[in-house]
Amino acid sequence: MTTTTLNVLNSLPSSCPRDDEDDGTAMLELMRDLYPICRSITGNGTRRSLAIIGERIPLRIHEVPTGTPILDWTVPKEWNIRSAYIATRDGCRVVDFADSNLHILQYSRPMDRIVPIAELQEHLHSLPETPDRIPYRTAYFADTWGFCLTQRQRDSLNQAEYRVVIDATLEDGHLSYGELVLPGDSEEEVLFSCHSCHPSLANDNLSGIAVATRLARHLERRAHRFTYRLLFIPGMLGSLTWLSRNEHIVPKVRHGLVLSCLGDPGATTYKQSRRGDAAIDRYVAHVLRHRGSPFRVTPFTPYGYDERQYCSPGFDLPVGCFMRSPNGTFPEYHTSADNLEFVREDCLVDSLEKLKAVVDVIEGDATYRSLNPKGEPQLGRRGLYGAISGHKDPAAAQMALLWTLNLADGRHTLFDIAERAEMPFADIRDAADRLIAVKLLEPVAS
Amino acid sequence: MTTTTLNVLNSLPSSCPRDDEDDGTAMLELMRDLYPICRSITGNGTRRSLAIIGERIPLRIHEVPTGTPILDWTVPKEWNIRSAYIATRDGCRVVDFADSNLHILQYSRPMDRIVPIAELQEHLHSLPETPDRIPYRTAYFADTWGFCLTQRQRDSLNQAEYRVVIDATLEDGHLSYGELVLPGDSEEEVLFSCHSCHPSLANDNLSGIAVATRLARHLERRAHRFTYRLLFIPGMLGSLTWLSRNEHIVPKVRHGLVLSCLGDPGATTYKQSRRGDAAIDRYVAHVLRHRGSPFRVTPFTPYGYDERQYCSPGFDLPVGCFMRSPNGTFPEYHTSADNLEFVREDCLVDSLEKLKAVVDVIEGDATYRSLNPKGEPQLGRRGLYGAISGHKDPAAAQMALLWTLNLADGRHTLFDIAERAEMPFADIRDAADRLIAVKLLEPVAS
Amino acid sequence: MTTTTLNVLNSLPSSCPRDDEDDGTAMLELMRDLYPICRSITGNGTRRSLAIIGERIPLRIHEVPTGTPILDWTVPKEWNIRSAYIATRDGCRVVDFADSNLHILQYSRPMDRIVPIAELQEHLHSLPETPDRIPYRTAYFADTWGFCLTQRQRDSLNQAEYRVVIDATLEDGHLSYGELVLPGDSEEEVLFSCHSCHPSLANDNLSGIAVATRLARHLERRAHRFTYRLLFIPGMLGSLTWLSRNEHIVPKVRHGLVLSCLGDPGATTYKQSRRGDAAIDRYVAHVLRHRGSPFRVTPFTPYGYDERQYCSPGFDLPVGCFMRSPNGTFPEYHTSADNLEFVREDCLVDSLEKLKAVVDVIEGDATYRSLNPKGEPQLGRRGLYGAISGHKDPAAAQMALLWTLNLADGRHTLFDIAERAEMPFADIRDAADRLIAVKLLEPVAS
Repeated sequence: MTTTTLNVLNSLPSSCPRDDEDDGTAMLELMRDLYPICRSITGNGTRRSLAIIGERIPLRIHEVPTGTPILDWTVPKEWNIRSAYIATRDGCRVVDFADSNLHILQYSRPMDRIVPIAELQEHLHSLPETPDRIPYRTAYFADTWGFCLTQRQRDSLNQAEYRVVIDATLEDGHLSYGELVLPGDSEEEVLFSCHSCHPSLANDNLSGIAVATRLARHLERRAHRFTYRLLFIPGMLGSLTWLSRNEHIVPKVRHGLVLSCLGDPGATTYKQSRRGDAAIDRYVAHVLRHRGSPFRVTPFTPYGYDERQYCSPGFDLPVGCFMRSPNGTFPEYHTSADNLEFVREDCLVDSLEKLKAVVDVIEGDATYRSLNPKGEPQLGRRGLYGAISGHKDPAAAQMALLWTLNLADGRHTLFDIAERAEMPFADIRDAADRLIAVKLLEPVAS
Repeated sequence: MTTTTLNVLNSLPSSCPRDDEDDGTAMLELMRDLYPICRSITGNGTRRSLAIIGERIPLRIHEVPTGTPILDWTVPKEWNIRSAYIATRDGCRVVDFADSNLHILQYSRPMDRIVPIAELQEHLHSLPETPDRIPYRTAYFADTWGFCLTQRQRDSLNQAEYRVVIDATLEDGHLSYGELVLPGDSEEEVLFSCHSCHPSLANDNLSGIAVATRLARHLERRAHRFTYRLLFIPGMLGSLTWLSRNEHIVPKVRHGLVLSCLGDPGATTYKQSRRGDAAIDRYVAHVLRHRGSPFRVTPFTPYGYDERQYCSPGFDLPVGCFMRSPNGTFPEYHTSADNLEFVREDCLVDSLEKLKAVVDVIEGDATYRSLNPKGEPQLGRRGLYGAISGHKDPAAAQMALLWTLNLADGRHTLFDIAERAEMPFADIRDAADRLIAVKLLEPVAS
Repeated sequence: MTTTTLNVLNSLPSSCPRDDEDDGTAMLELMRDLYPICRSITGNGTRRSLAIIGERIPLRIHEVPTGTPILDWTVPKEWNIRSAYIATRDGCRVVDFADSNLHILQYSRPMDRIVPIAELQEHLHSLPETPDRIPYRTAYFADTWGFCLTQRQRDSLNQAEYRVVIDATLEDGHLSYGELVLPGDSEEEVLFSCHSCHPSLANDNLSGIAVATRLARHLERRAHRFTYRLLFIPGMLGSLTWLSRNEHIVPKVRHGLVLSCLGDPGATTYKQSRRGDAAIDRYVAHVLRHRGSPFRVTPFTPYGYDERQYCSPGFDLPVGCFMRSPNGTFPEYHTSADNLEFVREDCLVDSLEKLKAVVDVIEGDATYRSLNPKGEPQLGRRGLYGAISGHKDPAAAQMALLWTLNLADGRHTLFDIAERAEMPFADIRDAADRLIAVKLLEPVAS
């Protein structure tokens, strides 16, 4: 029961686009490549998806064997499906996995049998209120089978019995996940985690995968002091697996975000970490507050995505969840209507830009001490002030300098200063850089 | 100057009703029995009332002699009144204590004298704005006399002089109060205190007496870890007396409530303890918030009922005051309109039920630690989860399990969890019990 | 480079009015005396102004020589101006310092030259939106010159060139400031600071000077335990100078206020100290809240008056800024419209009365312990309670006694008690005095 770690890509393929301008295009392209694949918490669809992501960023793929204990759980058997359908006795397929991989209840057991309509009905899932949509359903831990179909399809079932074929395997294999580590000056880490186990659902969570991939590309080019770790994992079991195999890493995680549902037109929603007052909670709220567009900050609840595991009491990591419309709050959620048309390029780009701004705060926050703490220093002779005083409104830049000098007492971080000044972090960071340049600030060891 | 303690009833009379269904009936019945009696801070009316309460619950009656020092005070002389009236010279009684025991200014000194109308007027108390109501007035510490009457009675006084007769005694005797102790597993105590010194006033405070009596009956039948102490005392001097005689008990009081005005149709009002953030303050607010009906929580003030004494700085007990309409805020207050018609059975029952819910929180709050703190445990294999996932809205019960597991880190009590989850305490307590049963929680020594 | 300290007046001239009734008259009179003088951060105008203030209160004048290092700064050269004008070639003065001392850009260098109109325009300052007002501008640290004029004056300039005369000196001299120390029982200090460097501007800040002067007169007559220090200083450089010369005093400053713009009809505005929760911040907010008239409390910002220096991180003094309309928020600000007509006597008096009430809190706040902490004491036998109980609304005085007794546990100051009771401090202070008189309170060493 050993685990293997394969390093798919150690360097970027030379053909990868490197300009920042095409973020939206590149994200949509990746989503289009991944959309048709039938992913699940295990199996070749997920494996193939990780390989496609790995063409963009040097992902390390981990394969963890069935039966491996992961905290209170065990890696399940690997599920692979080739085809599945419901057909009339004369061979007409009325529901076919080939049409949509949502049609199969995930982890359905293999079968090929004539089923009376009454029994079949007990294994069908549909949405009476949105009769043209196929629901997405799973049964990872139940030895059962089932089909998901539109209500219209279901209403047309008029035979006494149907042939049900599920050509699938449920056998010992592996749970696959992807990991990218971008070492920084420090061993302290920032964790980004997205679930990559859903089949043809675009917002949940190809959008998160696409944004995470572009964010990784951004981080590769950006100087950073923190070590960044990006995880592409099956929901729940993936984070449990990673946590169980990396308990020595857990104490190094300083900030983290679960990325999910990042392409819909809803307002950005930040769900706080269990702590509620972690630095990441304050950072994300600050970035959203200063972007000008509507946003929501909601408290932690132990329901949702993998923040449930990262924030379990034995780990209690400072990991929140960064979304647009939260799980369960948009009508397309977990249905065939969560398709590529539902996701908007500008929303993907907006999500990415906000995350870049969060990274700017993570990287830029630090503590300084004024080297001229008694009274204000002369800014004029240091080239930081106009010579004519008496103007009514000093520029924001001037205020940023004054705030930074006033609060740089070794007890306020630059982020604390930005919050108290009610100014964007970038303005305060810029002021600090200018003050450092004229030797009015010195760093304080944290 | 010794004090005597009499144990009126050691066991319940066998005829006592024991079913919970007739709470309202039993409370009204007790109030009807007590209503006609003229109680005061001392005297036979109070003594007789305690005996009637003692027919329902095994009350211990304490008799504390006149002159006994009680903190800064002294037990006063005992006041007993047989009759009192104002009559014309030809013997026609225009105001008569026999009609309403509110007619006499409490602690009026004995007299039998012809009084000129001008002098008489100086000793009369009436309510010009509600001319049909008799006010309730007392003069415990003044050597004076007086009558309370309706404004209409007062307006009809047209004689030059009247005969005033007060057949009362003010002599060395005792201050009487009732006490019931229901021992629990712990020596830590919960105190319920109600004033039982008012004459024919129904809401203030026969309602409190009736609710306290039924609450005692409920506690006799309910398993409880805390020791419960119920006091039926004259206002102010009663609590001072109890405190002065029980300084060794004071440190054991963990929670307490003064019960007053519990039968009127106003919204339940909780006046916080002096501490403002005591557990009882948080418990009561929680129970009221989750009942769905309007309520008020008001901050402590050093005016009101016996919480003034329990919350004096030398004791500073976590004792709030549980009411419906607070003293002085309803027009019937301290007048003859605070009669049996003013009190509603459903309001009495509602007050009692809320207090039972408070007891449930007091008894049920405790601290636990998850035995599976790293990641979520498998609820399915422990019979606590359905096998088909993906449903949009997990049941509240499921959320209660998840919240309890997530916050059971030894630092949150179950009450803290309920507050953070914004769920009724009972749901979290139930979740904890189910998790204990499958060995996912263990208690933490407090 | 020594500094000299001159003691202008050691005792009050016998002719000084001493009655409190004429506060408004006396303040307006002082403002009228000071208004015509051209003050700046140095120079004879400022020196003469301090002498006039010194006729009211025994001000000590400090003269600090040019070149003296003051923290990061240096005392500048002394600027004195005799006359300045812009004239046509035929000698007609179109702008003349003799008409308004605002006409000259402060610290303009001496000159007498024919200037082409294009060059002249670069040195003119006017207000197009309020074309009849002269702006107030300074250029302390720039080697330049300039004139301020109305837009109408500027629009009438139709010559090709003008003669520009500035008969000024910029030479080694002194920076002058005034200081008054009123010793109390304690070495702990209360600091009042006002800038006195502005020329003919009434609200900013002759009003502050006038109120500070009358407040000093009040303090001379009032018993006080704190030592009071009043500073009349040039803005910015004055506070830097005082701080640099008095670092041994800084740790003794317990409370402080910068006084500015105290005569306009706007609502009183209190700008908190950098700490935000200093006693002075709480005291001033309390006084304003209980005065009944509108007011504003705004958080600290490192822009404004000398609180910028007192609250620099190396000093971090508990010094807020007490104003009516803040700098920059009224249209008359820093223009010729901030004249004696703009300031109202009743507003000056209101500002002064509020400051006296703040002094009452500063002087009156202290910590006491109840000598009867267990239960309430008998107020009646100590003459502090009526003998007839049962009235609905006890007087506020009674409530003040009860609150004081309840919270006098050695952990609450009288101010804490007033805040919790939501009563004016004076009521609680009065209650405490009455309780001290009957030996129910004793002071607690702070």
